[in-house]
Amino acid sequence: MEPLFKIKMPYLIFLGDADQAKTGQGVRHWRPDSCVGQWRYPSLPLDIDLPEMNAAQAADAGAGTLLIGAAPAGGALPAHWIASMIEALEAGLDIASGLHSRLRDVPAIVECAARLGRQLHDVRHPLETFAIGNFAPRPGKRLLTVGTDCAVGKMYTALAVERELLVRGISADFRATGQTGILISGTGVSLDAVVSDFVSAAAATLSPANDEAHWDVIEGQGSLFHPAFAGVTLGLVHGSQADAMILCTEPTRKVLGIHEFPDYPLPTLEACLETYVAAASLTNKRATIIGISINTSKLDPADANALMDEVSTRLAMPCVDPVRTGVSALVDRLLEI
Amino acid sequence: MEPLFKIKMPYLIFLGDADQAKTGQGVRHWRPDSCVGQWRYPSLPLDIDLPEMNAAQAADAGAGTLLIGAAPAGGALPAHWIASMIEALEAGLDIASGLHSRLRDVPAIVECAARLGRQLHDVRHPLETFAIGNFAPRPGKRLLTVGTDCAVGKMYTALAVERELLVRGISADFRATGQTGILISGTGVSLDAVVSDFVSAAAATLSPANDEAHWDVIEGQGSLFHPAFAGVTLGLVHGSQADAMILCTEPTRKVLGIHEFPDYPLPTLEACLETYVAAASLTNKRATIIGISINTSKLDPADANALMDEVSTRLAMPCVDPVRTGVSALVDRLLEI
Repeated sequence: MEPLFKIKMPYLIFLGDADQAKTGQGVRHWRPDSCVGQWRYPSLPLDIDLPEMNAAQAADAGAGTLLIGAAPAGGALPAHWIASMIEALEAGLDIASGLHSRLRDVPAIVECAARLGRQLHDVRHPLETFAIGNFAPRPGKRLLTVGTDCAVGKMYTALAVERELLVRGISADFRATGQTGILISGTGVSLDAVVSDFVSAAAATLSPANDEAHWDVIEGQGSLFHPAFAGVTLGLVHGSQADAMILCTEPTRKVLGIHEFPDYPLPTLEACLETYVAAASLTNKRATIIGISINTSKLDPADANALMDEVSTRLAMPCVDPVRTGVSALVDRLLEI
Repeated sequence: MEPLFKIKMPYLIFLGDADQAKTGQGVRHWRPDSCVGQWRYPSLPLDIDLPEMNAAQAADAGAGTLLIGAAPAGGALPAHWIASMIEALEAGLDIASGLHSRLRDVPAIVECAARLGRQLHDVRHPLETFAIGNFAPRPGKRLLTVGTDCAVGKMYTALAVERELLVRGISADFRATGQTGILISGTGVSLDAVVSDFVSAAAATLSPANDEAHWDVIEGQGSLFHPAFAGVTLGLVHGSQADAMILCTEPTRKVLGIHEFPDYPLPTLEACLETYVAAASLTNKRATIIGISINTSKLDPADANALMDEVSTRLAMPCVDPVRTGVSALVDRLLEI
């Protein structure tokens, strides 16, 4: 299996004149040392607290890549940003984008990058092919975050666990499966964009054989209880061959999604424990869920603490909110297995 | 959701000088009325028992499409077949191919088809986009074939059930999810080639709302017990929202695949019954397995009959081999639900 791409760091984070910058904020939050500056148009009130610079200044400061850190309405690259992309390429930078539209569909950008030998990373659109292995056990340890639903904190929890492992001096790598995670870590596979036949193979490629004591901390996708996306989740569960899983949830949600799936109630945590362990056991007989990560941002502190205590007691495992409590209780349990 | 493509029938089946013609034989077997002739090069000993004709003769006989019915070694279109493809287009035929390589990657074919207004169907490479619905119940009845493994008779069983339903005067449509099935029925979705995020949506699109008494008979793919492909299977199970499933197996196989997955024993039928019903119940609470289809081709008749009797008694449901016994016992049970 060929190695995955690696985006050249550090980043100049491009915000342009967009009105939200979740990707840039995420990269800034999790990888501050990988960001040399932000590039904003004069009209933009958004600020992610990085030095202001343009492409040439960032190149002088050692930047390797212009990262599109803002999502314009509709997800397509605005035409009036193209001149800035060209300017970045000419200054010596590669470009990385998690937008739905592709840099490599813009002829002026493609031509300029080819002429100058720069890389274009459309991380939402994988180019790799993945060999289907035999799914035998491979060395190294693997943790996968799984969820009751989409958008319940699986990426955040995985990044927090990676950080806690590294703080404790334990060898670990966050393994990204979605565009924001890929831009944060500089590599990964946008799993929901892979042709379905190769999802398990891609997940296996993402967490290759490693030192026995090494932890891959793999970002989960979707939910086994989601009628539209459970297949992606199952492929990821099977391919990652995780030893441990952390179950993530958002406790105020009553049905899956926001309002798209009114016939699908959020599953119980107990149902998730049973279903995820059963699914994972196909490719790793020892797979277990070691704790719960709750996004309690919609609860007040007293209710949040009461909920975490109740869940921890009921399920006999640590229960945290990565933002309120950190994840050390999860990592303590992880290191016992 | 847009309607799927429809290949113009009947077919002229192109065999060229290939040394196997499984696709052509399958189409000939299941849709004899959709085949006007076969087109072979002089050197070819293969014969699927259709009148010999070239493209112009087939067009005169009413053919709508040249179907590539033979798989050359390697799965790519041989260069020396291109002249025949052009000849077919010029005679007035569309072209349909289930090869890995694409007709639309051959400039001479693309240019000729565009100039003459012909359709090129690379059925292994879907072009459609699929809207993600809400997976609410939809009218009409649905049967899905599922399996212990890949290549255990899921397509054959589904086609046999469709034929039996039609013989009994019951409204039914075979719904194809793989390239051979698509060429047999003239439409469908090559599910394992769909981007993973859209597998469930594609399966839902494939079996749209219909008359309450109508049966869609959906071709299964892969197996929930296959470490590489279970995600595709789960997406199909969820999107098809089947009322009934038939479990297909090949009893002499000990591990999944031929020898690629030595760590993965073939699951028991009991494990399959439990796992498929649990998975399907997410999107259809009434989903049930109504019978077993065994490919007994490697057993002698006495052993085959003994096995079918034993399985039928043990699991308390009909058990057939579509080739040896037909599927009427399955259809009898199906019509009881």
